[in-house]
Amino acid sequence: MFTQFTIQAPSAVIAEELQYKIDNKTKPLGALGELESIAFQLGKIQQTLAPDTSKPKMIIFAADHGVVAQGISLFPQEVTPQMVMNFLMGGAAVSIFCEQHKVPLRIVDVGVNAELAAHPLLGARKVAFSSQDFSQQAAMTTQQLEQAIQAGVDEANLAIDGGVNLLMFGEMGIGNTCVSSCMMTALIGVSAIDSAGRGTGLDLAGVSHKAQVIEQSLKRAEQETGQMMSDWSAQTLAEQVGGFEILAMAGAMLQSAQRQTAFVVDGFICSVALLFAQKVAANVREYAIFAHQSNEKAHKILLDHLKAEPILSLDLRLGEGSGAILAYPLISSACVFLNKMASFESAGVTDSK
Amino acid sequence: MFTQFTIQAPSAVIAEELQYKIDNKTKPLGALGELESIAFQLGKIQQTLAPDTSKPKMIIFAADHGVVAQGISLFPQEVTPQMVMNFLMGGAAVSIFCEQHKVPLRIVDVGVNAELAAHPLLGARKVAFSSQDFSQQAAMTTQQLEQAIQAGVDEANLAIDGGVNLLMFGEMGIGNTCVSSCMMTALIGVSAIDSAGRGTGLDLAGVSHKAQVIEQSLKRAEQETGQMMSDWSAQTLAEQVGGFEILAMAGAMLQSAQRQTAFVVDGFICSVALLFAQKVAANVREYAIFAHQSNEKAHKILLDHLKAEPILSLDLRLGEGSGAILAYPLISSACVFLNKMASFESAGVTDSK
Repeated sequence: MFTQFTIQAPSAVIAEELQYKIDNKTKPLGALGELESIAFQLGKIQQTLAPDTSKPKMIIFAADHGVVAQGISLFPQEVTPQMVMNFLMGGAAVSIFCEQHKVPLRIVDVGVNAELAAHPLLGARKVAFSSQDFSQQAAMTTQQLEQAIQAGVDEANLAIDGGVNLLMFGEMGIGNTCVSSCMMTALIGVSAIDSAGRGTGLDLAGVSHKAQVIEQSLKRAEQETGQMMSDWSAQTLAEQVGGFEILAMAGAMLQSAQRQTAFVVDGFICSVALLFAQKVAANVREYAIFAHQSNEKAHKILLDHLKAEPILSLDLRLGEGSGAILAYPLISSACVFLNKMASFESAGVTDSK
Repeated sequence: MFTQFTIQAPSAVIAEELQYKIDNKTKPLGALGELESIAFQLGKIQQTLAPDTSKPKMIIFAADHGVVAQGISLFPQEVTPQMVMNFLMGGAAVSIFCEQHKVPLRIVDVGVNAELAAHPLLGARKVAFSSQDFSQQAAMTTQQLEQAIQAGVDEANLAIDGGVNLLMFGEMGIGNTCVSSCMMTALIGVSAIDSAGRGTGLDLAGVSHKAQVIEQSLKRAEQETGQMMSDWSAQTLAEQVGGFEILAMAGAMLQSAQRQTAFVVDGFICSVALLFAQKVAANVREYAIFAHQSNEKAHKILLDHLKAEPILSLDLRLGEGSGAILAYPLISSACVFLNKMASFESAGVTDSK
């Protein structure tokens, strides 16, 4: 199913020249810290000494999840379409932050459990009205999985064909923290207790219940597939316990990498999408810039696994791409310093002894 | 000397209304993390439900330090005026980040050891051509101290009179990490080993030498004043081991607070300026927004002492206000969410169970 993705790691040919340029800016060696790493990564991805992220785009994938029937979220399912409307009307956090930074925003419906009226910002790519309750049966069919991945691929192509040079991804879907935790456990084998978190604000009993639902769902899926989850292919894993918006996001990440375009990973749910994408094609990781580290234990475990050091740590737990858009000005700053800052030579400043 | 500062803590009258507004935005309770704390702080400082930081200004205070004669910095003293020129020409990190975020930049010479030609961005408030070498004698006279503080007060007034609603401070001065460490040890009694750091890139031997210079300087000053450093007044401390740009910055912070204007604290050196300002008037702390936590051990100790949680942690070690300007878009985002984001009521979104 995933044979379309043949992702190359960025060439290291330019690495030395890039590092020289970074080191000769008027600052002590390494003094711009993580901005230097981002500038280096972007230069490598774009194969240039003058990387550019001035044409960004935020894409939010939205869908519903059958597993909410198990009472794993504080908010009812109707909040998904309500929040999609809030995005479209410009009132959500991600909307106003995108407006602040003049970043175009697009919402893509890949499985919201409601009819959504046409809107200029809305991409209509509904796969189904919600996935199935994966505690009882597979979350989706093979065809639905293909459609979800393709939705992401098409969205990435649309953006990159239009000149976008930095993709940012976000998500909306009541219950998708639970889906992400379940996928994470299936992908790297941590216990459900470690992968389940507070989501939008569950108490300890709520988290414990969520972990039980995850365990039961994975047991159900192992029985149905006749395989241990550690033996599942990416396809089997996604069909059994995936979510449409998470898989669409993974598809968009894979296509972004395929086309050598950097993308920004928001929070926990986006990180799980990347983890899944990595199972499909390991090199996708090289194109990812990590925006935010949340205080969810599961996210820390996952970021350690991915050897990722996010730009921000603001104790956000909102999703919807909010961490990504808040990190955007810092990603721009990384380009700006590489492109515009004076060198010791050009400014006539004496270098250190 | 410091009787002009009678700083009131911001009134808590508005606190409940502010918290209600924050909590009714379309997001789970607390989901915007530190942005919520910043919005709350700014609302309290400005006594409004619609805080505004759209008129910011970055002021960099620059000076030289006699103690560089003791070999405590990697860079020679002539780099101070060279970097001032780099700021003025727009080539330094802080220059290009200010340009990126359209933040006006001003450089104030309070003690650079060179004649500086007039420039539209340069405030000429030179107290002296460098402070004295405080390992040998007091760093400055009482009159010089008064002048340095007044330079900061005048700069803050100039900005606030012009409508500035958020001040950001930075510094430039070869050797000023050492001066800051010395002031920190005098102010809160930590050992010189704990307050001395790598500065712009010293190795371990360099740090150890710096700590020795600090210890000797403080011993010299205790002998000269006939007082233990823990008994020093703010005035005595500043005269003995202060630096012009650090004290000017403290003066600007005090005046900013006096006029109920929020200000942004950059890195280690700015944090020491705040620590000193706090010795003069404790409530100044309430008006400070902390931008960046560096990896310097001393900075962590100091931030813990100040109970401060900076917005960013990017492993910067540059100073010159670079952390403050990089945090600026996030401070703006805090205002933007409070002012523009929809509430559950306005967006018709169902709140959590």
